[in-house]
Amino acid sequence: MTTPFSFDVLATDGAARRGRIHTAHGTIETPAFMPVGTAATVKAMMPESVRSTGAEIILGNTYHLMIRPSAQRIHDLGGLHRFMNWPGPILTDSGGYQVMSLADLRKLTEDGVTFRSHIDGSKHRLTPEDSMDIQRLLDATITMALDECTPYPIDKAGAHNSMQLSMRWAKRSRDAWVERPGYGVYGIAQGSVFADLREESIKALAPMDFHGIAIGGLAVGEGRDLMFDTLDACEPFLPAEKPRYLMGVGKPLDLIGGVKRGIDQFDCVLPTRSGRTGQAFTWRGPINMRNARHKDDPRPIDESCSCPACRNYSRAYIRHLHRADEMLGAMLLTWHNIQHYQDLMARMRSAIEAGAFADFEAGVLAGYAQGDIDPR
Amino acid sequence: MTTPFSFDVLATDGAARRGRIHTAHGTIETPAFMPVGTAATVKAMMPESVRSTGAEIILGNTYHLMIRPSAQRIHDLGGLHRFMNWPGPILTDSGGYQVMSLADLRKLTEDGVTFRSHIDGSKHRLTPEDSMDIQRLLDATITMALDECTPYPIDKAGAHNSMQLSMRWAKRSRDAWVERPGYGVYGIAQGSVFADLREESIKALAPMDFHGIAIGGLAVGEGRDLMFDTLDACEPFLPAEKPRYLMGVGKPLDLIGGVKRGIDQFDCVLPTRSGRTGQAFTWRGPINMRNARHKDDPRPIDESCSCPACRNYSRAYIRHLHRADEMLGAMLLTWHNIQHYQDLMARMRSAIEAGAFADFEAGVLAGYAQGDIDPR
Repeated sequence: MTTPFSFDVLATDGAARRGRIHTAHGTIETPAFMPVGTAATVKAMMPESVRSTGAEIILGNTYHLMIRPSAQRIHDLGGLHRFMNWPGPILTDSGGYQVMSLADLRKLTEDGVTFRSHIDGSKHRLTPEDSMDIQRLLDATITMALDECTPYPIDKAGAHNSMQLSMRWAKRSRDAWVERPGYGVYGIAQGSVFADLREESIKALAPMDFHGIAIGGLAVGEGRDLMFDTLDACEPFLPAEKPRYLMGVGKPLDLIGGVKRGIDQFDCVLPTRSGRTGQAFTWRGPINMRNARHKDDPRPIDESCSCPACRNYSRAYIRHLHRADEMLGAMLLTWHNIQHYQDLMARMRSAIEAGAFADFEAGVLAGYAQGDIDPR
Repeated sequence: MTTPFSFDVLATDGAARRGRIHTAHGTIETPAFMPVGTAATVKAMMPESVRSTGAEIILGNTYHLMIRPSAQRIHDLGGLHRFMNWPGPILTDSGGYQVMSLADLRKLTEDGVTFRSHIDGSKHRLTPEDSMDIQRLLDATITMALDECTPYPIDKAGAHNSMQLSMRWAKRSRDAWVERPGYGVYGIAQGSVFADLREESIKALAPMDFHGIAIGGLAVGEGRDLMFDTLDACEPFLPAEKPRYLMGVGKPLDLIGGVKRGIDQFDCVLPTRSGRTGQAFTWRGPINMRNARHKDDPRPIDESCSCPACRNYSRAYIRHLHRADEMLGAMLLTWHNIQHYQDLMARMRSAIEAGAFADFEAGVLAGYAQGDIDPR
């Protein structure tokens, strides 16, 4: 009685899509934002709290988990869902991005990457086949193909070579991935900011029969305009019937721009990381909760937010906690930020259903333009 | 319709007392352990989570709060209960202990203490009258008289002088404390480990008509035996009709020994601090969750514990979180430790009601003797 992995588009509004992904671990309403649970925990959050915000799928980082506590250990303990008490869908990345950004002594060849752990110096190898095996051990609901996240900036020849390597690795990943009912594997399009390379990459992935297509190699310094231009260039070639995942994105306005351009899934450390550093996301833009202007403010971060931080605490208290480096400051603000991101996704889903996405976007931009500071 | 501050002894078993304190913010079943919420937060815990363990009263630290965010600010924001979202009873200490252990450039005179904040160097004064005023601004349910926590070791003459200063400050504290229905103020007996000085101190407090009597100046390095001897020396002189609070104590076996000697209230940072450093309290003694022996262990910390850490997570996972310095590790283990302490208090209350305190103590000691390591 296991649901096969499938995707339904329920409504569209321009290029924006309202969909639903069915998986072995539950359904995911799209567009969806996936909170990042790097080391088998969404930092500073209980999983029940993450779920309470409306989040249905989280992301785990293969690189971190393969190093500590190891994929085999997580497998032996019943898989990542059980290990971290998140029964819902989990997407794991391939490990490639973090290997190239975090690991020591890394060496990339046609076969894959060898590296030393930044934690304990232990030596590891990551090939497409290894990555599939590790993600299987983790019990990832959605497995990501191993790719090379093309650095930015890069010349076109370099971007082409990198993309072609990723396509060869995509084929090896797809071949090595072991089918299980309700589980899926996504390919990743590369090509940097070059429209024709993106087209070539997406077309190369088509015959590989992935369950979804990710856009990788963006949000790496190219800026919002160039990111949106690249998404515009991709959109016509992306298969309508498969979910599309923009990796590592982003700020709320990036998510809105991504959904507008046909993206169905996102992940980013921003709401969780900002929760620890004191930045709150609101409908009037991000605000720094460490700022002295909050020190006597009895109001919540966001009057319209239903999270515990906004229901039960003042800005003055949240500021106090962050100034005093109290964990509860990170706990409450992370919760708020995840709630804000999930509310944003829920409102986008409603707007698409109502055919009112443009109005929704205009409303958000008007809120940002108004800003946070009111006369008191 | 406000309840007056009162204390009922419901049952006794030897010197152990099963009681109930009535306050403006709710009742407290005694013997009670008060989790420490130093800077207006029980570290790494949501207040709802603290309450869920059975904790009915928490402690706030006057020194920390007067410095940051300041008592006046907390008052203006509706008091500490509202500020930190803990509607139940709160006991605040006088500030004296932390001034002498944490502050810079402190100077003690008959009048009080002047010092500079260890946070920002700002200059402050703390007299008995100041302490009462600050605790009133914080809206403490139970206010503590300002005392000098006598250092240890000390000769008898020094202990006598220090105790007599504390008695003069106790009188000034009691006189300055502003009566409000359902609020109380406790005096603090000093006298180090000298039985006759303890007797003198307790007798000096008697005419001051405090709502409760604290035993201060213990758990400062004298060791468990000398602490228990001192409690034994105090017990005959403590008024039966008032709650007795042993400050800054302790480990589970200290709490059992304290209750056995007539103590009704305790506070200690141990369960919360240990939750952050990886020590778990169990019925088989404390265990270090960072130890490698837990790395593949699918069992909970304590099979008999109802806390979320024990219901939903393996030792392997808790160990992983602590090794990876993930906040959730501190969150879960703090929760467990607070739950264990509250379970310990609940079992002691039941044992006193059943007239079975000696059996209870023997059972706990047997569990400790058995230890944590089972054949697997």
